[in-house]
Amino acid sequence: MDKNHDFLKPIHTPVPLIDPIRIRRNIRIMASRAEKPAVRFRPHFKTHQSAAIGEWFREAGVSGITVSSVAMARYFAEKGWCDITIAFPFNVREISALNLLDNLANIHILVDHPDTVATLAAGVTNQHRVFIKVDTGYHRTGIFWESRDEILTLARQIESSARLTFAGILTHAGHSYHCSGPKQVKAVFRETVGRMNRARDFLGENGFQNCKVSIGNTPGCSVADNFEGVDEIRPGNFVFYDLMQLSLGVCEEENLALALLCPVTGIYPDRNEIVVLGGAVHFSEEKLTDPDGHLISGYGMNLIQKGFGRLNREIRLIGLSQEHGIVQAPVEIIRKTRIGDLIGIIPVHSCLTADQFAGYLTTSGDRISRLNSVLARSDQLFSSPENSNSVSF
Amino acid sequence: MDKNHDFLKPIHTPVPLIDPIRIRRNIRIMASRAEKPAVRFRPHFKTHQSAAIGEWFREAGVSGITVSSVAMARYFAEKGWCDITIAFPFNVREISALNLLDNLANIHILVDHPDTVATLAAGVTNQHRVFIKVDTGYHRTGIFWESRDEILTLARQIESSARLTFAGILTHAGHSYHCSGPKQVKAVFRETVGRMNRARDFLGENGFQNCKVSIGNTPGCSVADNFEGVDEIRPGNFVFYDLMQLSLGVCEEENLALALLCPVTGIYPDRNEIVVLGGAVHFSEEKLTDPDGHLISGYGMNLIQKGFGRLNREIRLIGLSQEHGIVQAPVEIIRKTRIGDLIGIIPVHSCLTADQFAGYLTTSGDRISRLNSVLARSDQLFSSPENSNSVSF
Repeated sequence: MDKNHDFLKPIHTPVPLIDPIRIRRNIRIMASRAEKPAVRFRPHFKTHQSAAIGEWFREAGVSGITVSSVAMARYFAEKGWCDITIAFPFNVREISALNLLDNLANIHILVDHPDTVATLAAGVTNQHRVFIKVDTGYHRTGIFWESRDEILTLARQIESSARLTFAGILTHAGHSYHCSGPKQVKAVFRETVGRMNRARDFLGENGFQNCKVSIGNTPGCSVADNFEGVDEIRPGNFVFYDLMQLSLGVCEEENLALALLCPVTGIYPDRNEIVVLGGAVHFSEEKLTDPDGHLISGYGMNLIQKGFGRLNREIRLIGLSQEHGIVQAPVEIIRKTRIGDLIGIIPVHSCLTADQFAGYLTTSGDRISRLNSVLARSDQLFSSPENSNSVSF
Repeated sequence: MDKNHDFLKPIHTPVPLIDPIRIRRNIRIMASRAEKPAVRFRPHFKTHQSAAIGEWFREAGVSGITVSSVAMARYFAEKGWCDITIAFPFNVREISALNLLDNLANIHILVDHPDTVATLAAGVTNQHRVFIKVDTGYHRTGIFWESRDEILTLARQIESSARLTFAGILTHAGHSYHCSGPKQVKAVFRETVGRMNRARDFLGENGFQNCKVSIGNTPGCSVADNFEGVDEIRPGNFVFYDLMQLSLGVCEEENLALALLCPVTGIYPDRNEIVVLGGAVHFSEEKLTDPDGHLISGYGMNLIQKGFGRLNREIRLIGLSQEHGIVQAPVEIIRKTRIGDLIGIIPVHSCLTADQFAGYLTTSGDRISRLNSVLARSDQLFSSPENSNSVSF
């Protein structure tokens, strides 16, 4: 698979390979969708977490972004992004970390609990726009959309703080991922907008006339007929897409833009299997059911000159342990595979795969960096005791 | 849950908390098991990947270790470990990285393919003991134990190389994890030893009298009646154990030594749920079925003064998305939980959880470091082009 690609020669362990042409096209398509009618396109950067890929978004006119943690906000703030929403119900243990960003960026906050608002009101040192997380049916976080009085009470509590401004309502229709196909995804999207609009209208009747409606998620934003009733969209995964989105019918094969390149370490012709270095620590254990009813963790991706070629569903990642991946393939592929070859595999969930690396290799042979999530998660373990104690609770 | 633990105050995002008393006891128990009869105890360090925890093994008399990658071998070699087996079928793309360890440690290699042996024979710059991976029924990697001639041919190929010495046969009975309980685990272990002994005897009859038998895996090593017919054991997970081992019946609650501490970011009394910052990127997506038939990703762990207390199976991690965990708990627990509290959760698979961090917090309040896996996986992306080109293929 790697025979004609010189830039792959130095690769010795699994590496996420991305196709910049496809990524830029995915960005352009989503940016132009956000013009029907014009809504704020505030992409979620948790999927790529890369300053370099961020620049490709800037080229498409993006200026405001979404992230899921204070660490990610810091990373992008330091790269010049100054309009950032942290779309995770704020973790009050990170107020000091949030305050450290005061001079770098405007950070917008998400809340769904009065105690979080109270702690923010007492602890922030800068002005923040605050969104209320609304549960439109996913039942993970947020105030249920029908609990209108609860939403209103929280909005009033936010407005009563000198440093907080109520900005609007925000939802993530995660149940889109359980849909049967694009038609159902569209219906969920429409239903979500309807519920958000009813909550917005109620807030409007009660003094909050400028309540924005922010809606997330790649499936809905990829197929919605239009964005009537929406002020802002926050899709993220579309930058790479993956097998989950493909199986949901919200992207095409030619949108897939991230593959994990894995070295072949074993060949087992008796059972038509190859073993690669590339396991649960690289792919995550996200699986999906292929048309034959078998669970798979990835399909092969052919590489062409300077880009991705066609998905090869005959190359199937059927098993994962911590660092091994078991790949099933037709006998003719097994026969020409050699120890040390690289196999490109499209993961089921590209966000989780990318999160295991501190950078990407592009099909042009460039190497670009991204946030090292492990380091970002572990800073509190290695900051000096003085710094730790300066975090107030 | 964190009310009486001052050392937890500076914690602001999820952190793996470990109990050194339990870990040391787990190590002592396994070291003493390895004396019935005396076998080489070569623990797998892929679970903890920490120099500090390595020292606790040294105190128990351990001098040789097992790892699963060249990067991990380098990390421990630099910490003074000089007898290291890389128990992963060798990835020929890493021969240059292997050779860089020549002056640091004796590295023992695993193979199951003649092309790997040929590449090693042509490329290594130091002497290496080489094990043949044997498949005793797990069907992941290795030469099937009944393919005796194939094993013999590979042993002869190894011996024919000036720098390689055939050391023995090595297996990983990963199918132990599918057993119904300790009785079946013992039976699989006995069967595995029997198969390895038949392969060893055949090699002995054909000129390889000093063939060692190396057997891995925590379940088998935790419950085997004895180690007759075995030269070396390589368990790893037992250092922390986890819910998978507990549900398999090969450890007790008091052996569980790693919990992920997660901040509470949402409380949903209507559905008896709490949401924590702690999701698939922290826990991995490994799940198991609880006695009620529901899939869970973790149970709560009570903390006592300077250590772990009792497992609390009423605190159940029932859902994960990228960074959120949904925790179900009884109403009385929900009622006293506050935004910003920390909840300790025992993961299903401790290896994968630990791999997401660059260190641990101990219940004594110490902070200890471990290999940053993301960085180790990404070095090839950021080494200078000169270095990359020096890797030969």
